[in-house]
Amino acid sequence: MRKLSVFVALLFLSTAIFAQSGKVYDNLSLPSKILKMDRKYAVYLPPDYETSTRTYPVLYLLHGSGDDQTGWVQFGEVLRIADNAIKEGTATPMVIIMPDANTGRRGYFNDPKGDWNYEDFFFKELVPYVEKKYHIKSDKRYRAVAGLSMGGGGSFVYALHHPEMFSSACPLSAATGPLTIEDAKKQLMRTIPDVADSVVTQYYNRQSVVALVNAVPDDQKKAVRWYIDDGDDDFLYEGNCMVHIAMRKKEIPHEFRVRDGGHTWTYWRESLPKVLEFVSQAFHQY
Amino acid sequence: MRKLSVFVALLFLSTAIFAQSGKVYDNLSLPSKILKMDRKYAVYLPPDYETSTRTYPVLYLLHGSGDDQTGWVQFGEVLRIADNAIKEGTATPMVIIMPDANTGRRGYFNDPKGDWNYEDFFFKELVPYVEKKYHIKSDKRYRAVAGLSMGGGGSFVYALHHPEMFSSACPLSAATGPLTIEDAKKQLMRTIPDVADSVVTQYYNRQSVVALVNAVPDDQKKAVRWYIDDGDDDFLYEGNCMVHIAMRKKEIPHEFRVRDGGHTWTYWRESLPKVLEFVSQAFHQY
Amino acid sequence: MRKLSVFVALLFLSTAIFAQSGKVYDNLSLPSKILKMDRKYAVYLPPDYETSTRTYPVLYLLHGSGDDQTGWVQFGEVLRIADNAIKEGTATPMVIIMPDANTGRRGYFNDPKGDWNYEDFFFKELVPYVEKKYHIKSDKRYRAVAGLSMGGGGSFVYALHHPEMFSSACPLSAATGPLTIEDAKKQLMRTIPDVADSVVTQYYNRQSVVALVNAVPDDQKKAVRWYIDDGDDDFLYEGNCMVHIAMRKKEIPHEFRVRDGGHTWTYWRESLPKVLEFVSQAFHQY
Amino acid sequence: MRKLSVFVALLFLSTAIFAQSGKVYDNLSLPSKILKMDRKYAVYLPPDYETSTRTYPVLYLLHGSGDDQTGWVQFGEVLRIADNAIKEGTATPMVIIMPDANTGRRGYFNDPKGDWNYEDFFFKELVPYVEKKYHIKSDKRYRAVAGLSMGGGGSFVYALHHPEMFSSACPLSAATGPLTIEDAKKQLMRTIPDVADSVVTQYYNRQSVVALVNAVPDDQKKAVRWYIDDGDDDFLYEGNCMVHIAMRKKEIPHEFRVRDGGHTWTYWRESLPKVLEFVSQAFHQY
Repeated sequence: MRKLSVFVALLFLSTAIFAQSGKVYDNLSLPSKILKMDRKYAVYLPPDYETSTRTYPVLYLLHGSGDDQTGWVQFGEVLRIADNAIKEGTATPMVIIMPDANTGRRGYFNDPKGDWNYEDFFFKELVPYVEKKYHIKSDKRYRAVAGLSMGGGGSFVYALHHPEMFSSACPLSAATGPLTIEDAKKQLMRTIPDVADSVVTQYYNRQSVVALVNAVPDDQKKAVRWYIDDGDDDFLYEGNCMVHIAMRKKEIPHEFRVRDGGHTWTYWRESLPKVLEFVSQAFHQY
Repeated sequence: MRKLSVFVALLFLSTAIFAQSGKVYDNLSLPSKILKMDRKYAVYLPPDYETSTRTYPVLYLLHGSGDDQTGWVQFGEVLRIADNAIKEGTATPMVIIMPDANTGRRGYFNDPKGDWNYEDFFFKELVPYVEKKYHIKSDKRYRAVAGLSMGGGGSFVYALHHPEMFSSACPLSAATGPLTIEDAKKQLMRTIPDVADSVVTQYYNRQSVVALVNAVPDDQKKAVRWYIDDGDDDFLYEGNCMVHIAMRKKEIPHEFRVRDGGHTWTYWRESLPKVLEFVSQAFHQY
Repeated sequence: MRKLSVFVALLFLSTAIFAQSGKVYDNLSLPSKILKMDRKYAVYLPPDYETSTRTYPVLYLLHGSGDDQTGWVQFGEVLRIADNAIKEGTATPMVIIMPDANTGRRGYFNDPKGDWNYEDFFFKELVPYVEKKYHIKSDKRYRAVAGLSMGGGGSFVYALHHPEMFSSACPLSAATGPLTIEDAKKQLMRTIPDVADSVVTQYYNRQSVVALVNAVPDDQKKAVRWYIDDGDDDFLYEGNCMVHIAMRKKEIPHEFRVRDGGHTWTYWRESLPKVLEFVSQAFHQY
Repeated sequence: MRKLSVFVALLFLSTAIFAQSGKVYDNLSLPSKILKMDRKYAVYLPPDYETSTRTYPVLYLLHGSGDDQTGWVQFGEVLRIADNAIKEGTATPMVIIMPDANTGRRGYFNDPKGDWNYEDFFFKELVPYVEKKYHIKSDKRYRAVAGLSMGGGGSFVYALHHPEMFSSACPLSAATGPLTIEDAKKQLMRTIPDVADSVVTQYYNRQSVVALVNAVPDDQKKAVRWYIDDGDDDFLYEGNCMVHIAMRKKEIPHEFRVRDGGHTWTYWRESLPKVLEFVSQAFHQY
């Protein structure tokens, strides 16, 4: 009897202490049939993940160009910032998945040439894989996407292509794709000099955030909660302002912030607590 | 005897109290030959204004449409906010002049018809009058302009028309005038149905903030320090975003903020401390 | 009787309130026979100056080149900073005299040509004048000198020429004069192309802070308490470091600080509270 | 049974507690072929080191003369200070390696006589060893060096000899080697009375920090981020001031601080949080 009570007391104590700190793994991988290779990812597990038997909401947190799945861990300080937000109650405990989109510098989208279908991989392989592997809730309400720069573009496009998948999307300092058909053509001609007009139109319609916003059906205007943030010194100012204007004209509810700063991790480390708070408002209701 | 000594004591006391807290007068006026009438204004004097003999920098703080010189006093809490900022050292002691532009709802500019030359009144009568009446420094370095909505438009236009007059300008939730020639024509036709094209062009060139920004000569890009602030729910979102884009493309240094909120005094009371801090950076140097 | 008690109560109340805020006058002047003109100065009087009948220590606070007696008032925020330091007890109440050395840009020293004997004016006219006009103690213990840039040079040279006059000296971002005889010659030849060697030597011996430090007699090493402060981005780094080295080798006790910053008022506003605290240590003993 | 369950519970508990606080080991060692002996070192592991699987940046933190690998642990309070800085977010989680250079008092450099090649040991044996043993990132960006006194000299010389190895270097109260060829000769003659001039020159060029600074090629001026700190009462004032002057003249960006204090652990315990913050700025980007 004594044995048991000591054990229980120690278990209780250790649980209490465990509640203080989450865990990060930054070098995991999963096999992809679509991409015909293994793809890496990092994961943040909240402080009570290993001691509680419950399921958690999930945030997909996307890195920028030239970086990989370790970016939000090393530069973004996701462990400390998420731990603090959960401890303070501004964020609810959640799992954070940080996939690597970057080997070969090809990013989050399906390539127009068809040999890099990362968007397909994300929805058909990554999401089912992590939802099976971790204690993650699989309803739209409990799933969010956020990211910076190229990953901000990913956040915009994923949530506009799949509003049935995410309750919240938080593009930070986002690449917003071509602003016009002409921009789209110029971008494509860099790799496909004789690109056909039909390919340009299709690309524009799929990758221009302004075009995607303008195409949102009336009954989908409130399908996703948006938090858009871009520093006043960021070089991506035009696209983000034009998306804000397009969303206002279209009457799509969204939060928009322009704070002091540029395209830097100092800026994004300040954005992250706001992202965690914003997605948590959907995760644990208002 | 008793009357006198109590009077003296009260006078002494009142002098003493001034030293703690600034003073606001919200119903003063000056005669205007240009406008052929008396015009009202309010003034904020910093805590040490009456006990120290020195000269002060000056901020012209402009109200919005439908309001008058009492707006920043009653709704804007200028006394409490300026006193606090000065006490904390985020702002340097300054005089704040709040003119009334609004009787007849005609605003801060010279009317195209020529019967309401408020901009002339401001520079030729108001500024000289208050610089004589109060202990105000009269160099550009020590003069700033800020305002909200219609007064944000005034801040933009005054500082773009007269960059030699202001070290800093802070338009808040600003009306930015016509974005295009077509907009300008539509606006004018409300009051002048058969308006001539030359009048439209002249009006556009004088009142469109985007046009004024695009016309800034290269050697004047750093003539004025800018702090521009507009809530993400403000109905004036498009003009302010387009000015931000125009200034970025033109490489005119400026601070731009989009915070959470709309066209409300709650928003502007949060802006005011930042305005006082920003203009003080020029007033007491970096 | 009631009359009197009301009067006394009000007087007491007003005194209490007066104790919160000092006074600044920034446009005073005194006649100078030596300079054959009126010279301006500013003064800070501590919060209790007008209600107490006592005498105060005095700090002479010198502006930099291109500035005048209003610099420490407008840019240096001497009123708020001294009031706060006195209120918090880190500084003892003192009078602060800020003379204008700058009309004609000729500075704090006697010109080698003999037509601008400001140093003589300072000691023979300004000090006696203000010690008579204000309630100032006239012992060395209660007199200090501080200043920035050109005024830092003034602080060094005045206290090294007249160690019997100051208990403390605080040169900030100081101009330290010629480092070598060759430097001295070059400096003089700008205005006196055919300057005589004897004039160069005399100038070097009088104006080089390193030379003055090396010439301090053994029994005078502790005559003045020194607080020397220069930002790591300041362009006057070499002179200040060489003075620190010279003082260390000569075993002249001194405080030396290199903080983060350049030749800016942001730096000097952070220095001023330390200066007030340092000179107060002599004024009210340890 | 009881034994086992208590054991399991304690193991579980100890894992849990690690998550709160980093760990220090101060009596580890590695074999050295170059030095023909085992060399000791201490290590600090950040709070999440054992629960998360990720890689970390690394700081090499060097002790002073007369001390050993336990100095920063016992006197420097590295565990408490690093834990606090990481918790507050001023520092990013990192591994800290504290090698022992001191048995026989021979220090961090290759001895001119050739029988103590510690610098070779450091780069060829220690760095590869710890990068293999611990979860350490091995890019320059994630590697920094800091140290005090003799270890400040090590920080200077290692980063000047190997700018390709360190993103940041932080010499504290550093020994800066001979200031002149004459100094170098005097130093060498203590152990090699008939030292050849060529040996003196070689020694000066390799060990004088001022000489090394003056020899930095133009394209390497920004290769390393520098934080240099030396108390105003420190006996090593001259060398550190001369290095500051040399770097300013050479236009090598660097931070330089002179705070109040001497060659004491009180001083260095105040330096350590600044060092951790400074190196973290490179580790997690701005």
